[in-house]
Amino acid sequence: MRAITITRDGTGPELRERPLPSPDEGEVLVRTLRVGVDGTDREVVAGEHGDLPAGEDDLVLGHEAVGVVADANGTALPEGTVVAPTVRRPPNGTNEYFERGEPDMAPEGEYLERGIVGAHGYMAEYFTSPPEYLVALPRALAEWGFLVEQASITEKALSTAYASRSTFTWEPESALVLGNGSLGLLSLAMLDDRVERTYCLGRRERPDPTIDFIEDLGATYVDSRTTPVPEIPKTYEGMDLVYEATGYAKHAFETIETLAPNGVGALVGVPGDWTFEVDGGRLHRELVLHNKALVGTVNSNRDHFERAVETLSSLPEGVLDALVTHVVPPEEYDRAFADDDTALKTAIEFDTL
Amino acid sequence: MRAITITRDGTGPELRERPLPSPDEGEVLVRTLRVGVDGTDREVVAGEHGDLPAGEDDLVLGHEAVGVVADANGTALPEGTVVAPTVRRPPNGTNEYFERGEPDMAPEGEYLERGIVGAHGYMAEYFTSPPEYLVALPRALAEWGFLVEQASITEKALSTAYASRSTFTWEPESALVLGNGSLGLLSLAMLDDRVERTYCLGRRERPDPTIDFIEDLGATYVDSRTTPVPEIPKTYEGMDLVYEATGYAKHAFETIETLAPNGVGALVGVPGDWTFEVDGGRLHRELVLHNKALVGTVNSNRDHFERAVETLSSLPEGVLDALVTHVVPPEEYDRAFADDDTALKTAIEFDTL
Repeated sequence: MRAITITRDGTGPELRERPLPSPDEGEVLVRTLRVGVDGTDREVVAGEHGDLPAGEDDLVLGHEAVGVVADANGTALPEGTVVAPTVRRPPNGTNEYFERGEPDMAPEGEYLERGIVGAHGYMAEYFTSPPEYLVALPRALAEWGFLVEQASITEKALSTAYASRSTFTWEPESALVLGNGSLGLLSLAMLDDRVERTYCLGRRERPDPTIDFIEDLGATYVDSRTTPVPEIPKTYEGMDLVYEATGYAKHAFETIETLAPNGVGALVGVPGDWTFEVDGGRLHRELVLHNKALVGTVNSNRDHFERAVETLSSLPEGVLDALVTHVVPPEEYDRAFADDDTALKTAIEFDTL
Repeated sequence: MRAITITRDGTGPELRERPLPSPDEGEVLVRTLRVGVDGTDREVVAGEHGDLPAGEDDLVLGHEAVGVVADANGTALPEGTVVAPTVRRPPNGTNEYFERGEPDMAPEGEYLERGIVGAHGYMAEYFTSPPEYLVALPRALAEWGFLVEQASITEKALSTAYASRSTFTWEPESALVLGNGSLGLLSLAMLDDRVERTYCLGRRERPDPTIDFIEDLGATYVDSRTTPVPEIPKTYEGMDLVYEATGYAKHAFETIETLAPNGVGALVGVPGDWTFEVDGGRLHRELVLHNKALVGTVNSNRDHFERAVETLSSLPEGVLDALVTHVVPPEEYDRAFADDDTALKTAIEFDTL
């Protein structure tokens, strides 16, 4: 079968022939429909993040996938079920985090990540998986099901943020998404139903497809070049919720100033080291005197995937279609990995339902 | 009656004669037993924080009090009830935060604070209050009831911290209190029952009464001069919970590094402006990749006072006695406001039960 891989010697991404995987007992075989590409994939390709499976010379890329069960292999998951696979797997059989259904809370060393760290991903015509790591989707979501993984990241971040505000009456009316990448835009669409006034930060000039997407949702585009993050409360309003999806380290700290009293910032971006000055006294004081919180979250679990399926199913007609601007065949994988300002979200399509 | 006040021209603290307050309709008259002194009182005295009541020339100090109802004044609160008063009051009749029972979530301008901002405090032989701002205590707590206010700060901070971890299985085994002032030591005692291993940071040499108190609780004393906060995980262990009670701004950021994966830092100290360098990229990444959270909280509400009463009632015999090292009569108020390394907690005693 065809698969998009990188190799240990630094080659790739490239489209190569690999043997069709054969499901172990208790595993099903999934025929891949579409696989999304995001910043993490680009980091894996650049060698900045992740690792190949132990003892192997290549890694099948891809962790945002949708497929259809091709061989139930004696399990209870019916053939023909449309599924999105979760990402984390236990490195040695199992551990307490996986047993509790909370692999997303496992510390480093206690998990592999398919397509990222130590386990093959989904950019191939077929993949295998135990059914417990596959979340069933309505057939209507088959084309967009590769977005469930990203949406699950946001479900986890939002549920953590909301939990942090659960000790008092909190009805967020304003939310700001930092970042107009695919995760930022998808999260903005997901927030639309929960929060009255939504804002999204970018650094682009009109005409621009991300700005169009933001404004078509009814959200407000905030240009960081004219309105730096700490100025947002003065120019617009203090934000009850900030969702940081860029991994730009200063944002984590500026978020504290941008929050309205009793607000929460959810952080999901992953920056590298960067030393800079902050008025730490003011930020610390702001957190305390205005009951603010910052919550970092990574990855997601099966519950978040299931909630993501519901949320994506409830989005207004056309939103997901507008988000997925590019769908390319496997042989055009380089278009999917390229930096392309006209692309909001790109998927590689291995097959159709 | 005798009251300890500051005046608008900067005089004080001083012990002065003031007229006995007369309860308005719906208010009771409380005979003051003891009033605690903390860092906020010292800031008010120094003119760094707070404000006098509008149109008045003095402020009765004190916000940590215990008293006994001397005149029920037709209300349902029986005379003889031992009570601790809450601190915040509505500035103009009421507002949504007070109506919800969440004055602690009110932003600036939406509250007064007795003894601190715009309303007389409790350092006087008598004070008046509507009964809804008085929390009844068992008579056995009468001597220690002035600690309920500080304990309520910790109840709020801990419940907010725990709520932020409520989306997954979280059973904190290690907790670090930053600060060996009275709030830090009281919080350490309150954590003893919830968390297996407790630690408390200070900057003192043995022999020292704070270190004795810490070790008598079975907690570990951490000397910040030999073990800076970011070194704590290496020297001791990563902390599931950090409680920042110093207001030293760098601690808020160092807390992120000191937390174990999935841990939470609760901040209650209030620093002034202070600009310094941080490796913001590393801190931001730590928050995300290890699902960490920082929650700031200020003040407390009636629920927290009620929980504080329960928690203080359940502390082992002798702990509160060991904490309250100094009890002075009103005329020796200057001993209460002085910096005294032999004092863990000092109260001014106006009367006994």
